[in-house]
Amino acid sequence: MSPFTGSVHAAERWEHIRVTEDDGTVTVTLDRPGKLNALTFEAYADLRDLLAELSRTKRARALVLGGEGRGFCSGGDVDEIIGATLSMDTGQLLDFNRMTGQVVRALREAPFPVVAAVHGVAAGAGAVLALAADFRVADPTARFAFLFTRVGLSGGDMGAAYLLPRVVGLGHATRILMLGEPVRAAEAERIGLISQLADEGGVHEAADGLARRLADGPALAHAQTKALLTAELDMPLAAAVEMDAATQALLMNSEDYAEFHAAFGEKRSPKWQGK
Amino acid sequence: MSPFTGSVHAAERWEHIRVTEDDGTVTVTLDRPGKLNALTFEAYADLRDLLAELSRTKRARALVLGGEGRGFCSGGDVDEIIGATLSMDTGQLLDFNRMTGQVVRALREAPFPVVAAVHGVAAGAGAVLALAADFRVADPTARFAFLFTRVGLSGGDMGAAYLLPRVVGLGHATRILMLGEPVRAAEAERIGLISQLADEGGVHEAADGLARRLADGPALAHAQTKALLTAELDMPLAAAVEMDAATQALLMNSEDYAEFHAAFGEKRSPKWQGK
Amino acid sequence: MSPFTGSVHAAERWEHIRVTEDDGTVTVTLDRPGKLNALTFEAYADLRDLLAELSRTKRARALVLGGEGRGFCSGGDVDEIIGATLSMDTGQLLDFNRMTGQVVRALREAPFPVVAAVHGVAAGAGAVLALAADFRVADPTARFAFLFTRVGLSGGDMGAAYLLPRVVGLGHATRILMLGEPVRAAEAERIGLISQLADEGGVHEAADGLARRLADGPALAHAQTKALLTAELDMPLAAAVEMDAATQALLMNSEDYAEFHAAFGEKRSPKWQGK
Repeated sequence: MSPFTGSVHAAERWEHIRVTEDDGTVTVTLDRPGKLNALTFEAYADLRDLLAELSRTKRARALVLGGEGRGFCSGGDVDEIIGATLSMDTGQLLDFNRMTGQVVRALREAPFPVVAAVHGVAAGAGAVLALAADFRVADPTARFAFLFTRVGLSGGDMGAAYLLPRVVGLGHATRILMLGEPVRAAEAERIGLISQLADEGGVHEAADGLARRLADGPALAHAQTKALLTAELDMPLAAAVEMDAATQALLMNSEDYAEFHAAFGEKRSPKWQGK
Repeated sequence: MSPFTGSVHAAERWEHIRVTEDDGTVTVTLDRPGKLNALTFEAYADLRDLLAELSRTKRARALVLGGEGRGFCSGGDVDEIIGATLSMDTGQLLDFNRMTGQVVRALREAPFPVVAAVHGVAAGAGAVLALAADFRVADPTARFAFLFTRVGLSGGDMGAAYLLPRVVGLGHATRILMLGEPVRAAEAERIGLISQLADEGGVHEAADGLARRLADGPALAHAQTKALLTAELDMPLAAAVEMDAATQALLMNSEDYAEFHAAFGEKRSPKWQGK
Repeated sequence: MSPFTGSVHAAERWEHIRVTEDDGTVTVTLDRPGKLNALTFEAYADLRDLLAELSRTKRARALVLGGEGRGFCSGGDVDEIIGATLSMDTGQLLDFNRMTGQVVRALREAPFPVVAAVHGVAAGAGAVLALAADFRVADPTARFAFLFTRVGLSGGDMGAAYLLPRVVGLGHATRILMLGEPVRAAEAERIGLISQLADEGGVHEAADGLARRLADGPALAHAQTKALLTAELDMPLAAAVEMDAATQALLMNSEDYAEFHAAFGEKRSPKWQGK
């Protein structure tokens, strides 16, 4: 239990996403297989609120984000989201688009690594959710489709124009976001969009294995590595090395660092506590 | 006709580059084939002024930049530019180098995608013009040569030290700009410098096809995608997702977005208007 | 001799690294082969101070950094550094981590290109030293291991979380820094971490050849290219093209630029002076 808890209660049940926990790993499953896990307003809100809650408590040391059924996520629901936005006023449109961006920020700023398990289609907002993860484990059926321009919108949805050039370079990112063409697994691996290619049908097992390994490891070190990677994308070198120095000095006081040295001397594996 | 026109008249004729227009696509051809399309002071000025004009009017929804004859562009003319700069004073040297940088800024900031059609040599400033485009369609004869250090100058000419690391990564960019060695089509494709590889001799047709497709598509969505890609290279994630949210809210009021939804309901292709 | 010298004397002898000079190239060898060139506090300090001295004098036009014996560098010594840090107070920990960061800044800010010659293991701080170089010449035995999380520390050591995403993209960098798995030569080449792959056993010869070529070339142009590449990683495009314009105007007054033009007219190779 976090000492930094006030009046806010967590949701008793996540109604619009499926959430399970297992000794430090949290699995979030987009669970509308009949609609290829199309996102609704409520699913975005649940993702935002769950990530906020997990970032406050210390329960999560790794998170897996996957989809039930034939694919990962087909993006915003054509009826429930695109249709609904056509009758919104300007303020509502801004609120909606800010909410989706908050999910991406929450994924990037969460103090634990996020593993996207991608099989089949990851389209629109689904592609951006995968892009915002720290790891993309994909199988040969994976297909990333940043198809925003295909519906008349900007390819820079939910931070995609920020993240994609930093992952695959500006040339590929321009082509992918401007044209909205699908990026299949082979190309995704070639250009650096995939972290690990799993066998067909094996993406959930591979993602779970990676999350288990991360959760069982030096979780505080992982969390700080992620925080520095995220922050230093937009920071001059001089500030970055200063931030690294302060972080490393902090972690040199941690129990895991002392444990590594003890284990090394005793020629055994370290017992990581994540603190 | 743009409502935002004052006293300035467009050039009646572009004397130092060849410019043709066809229903929303503008083709700019570097047209000194006897000198491998070497650039002159006047050609730079025409590129700068044409891009400014096209950015004000709404005539261009895509632009192709190519070269007449044996190659794309051999860069600044050795006599007319290198020779001339040797007798310039400090203020003139600064003015000249600012002008070439303005062409690159204009390419990056133009509210329409730019497709470079590269065959044969793209050397010096020619390589940077191609680099500043959104798409580089190249054929197997293409050869990018950032040869500035070979003439005793900095490899960071006209924004090359800014753009190239963001396209191919810092390691490749350092090697290419510092040594000035040519990057042939196969390597360019491997490291992400090429957007599309065309058959030999087919680069103009491929580039025209891409420009036609872009101009016939949701041009406002393309323009905003480009604007976000350009701006978010140097912006923290939090600012980028806020910019995305405002842009997307704006486009959700656009005619093209409503048209997509209507066409989807009627199971037909959208008729894009670019607004 | 630099005119900008005051009371400070250079070290008379570098006791913790091996330093040799040869007509503008400086070779720095990590020289504790019995410990796979593990770094000590004094070796870091010598690297910092040597780079500061070379940046003030005009003796170095290129620098090679390599390792004696079986590999490049195994990183911080487990006893002499990890053990020692366990009994340091907070201020000392910060001072140590600032010093290692200063070595990386000095490598990036030195006014001459740095060539890392990597054979065998480049682990921990050794991997970051190689990463901070401008060129990584490696042979098939090279193995880059950013293994900080393996000892319970942040993967963002000494600027690694800043530099690695800018070299290989955020996806690969996250995987490499978070998991601490070794990157072998073939993968390093594929993702852009290696500048040049040498034959096995030939890494020192290849690195020396590159350094010689750089030192014999237009060294001021190389230095400014490096300065722009370093600075423009964190600068908007508009500022970058202005910086390029000023730099190029400066170099258009240089002796090497005039020499290029004279040599071109006389159909001979330029005699570069590096000024």
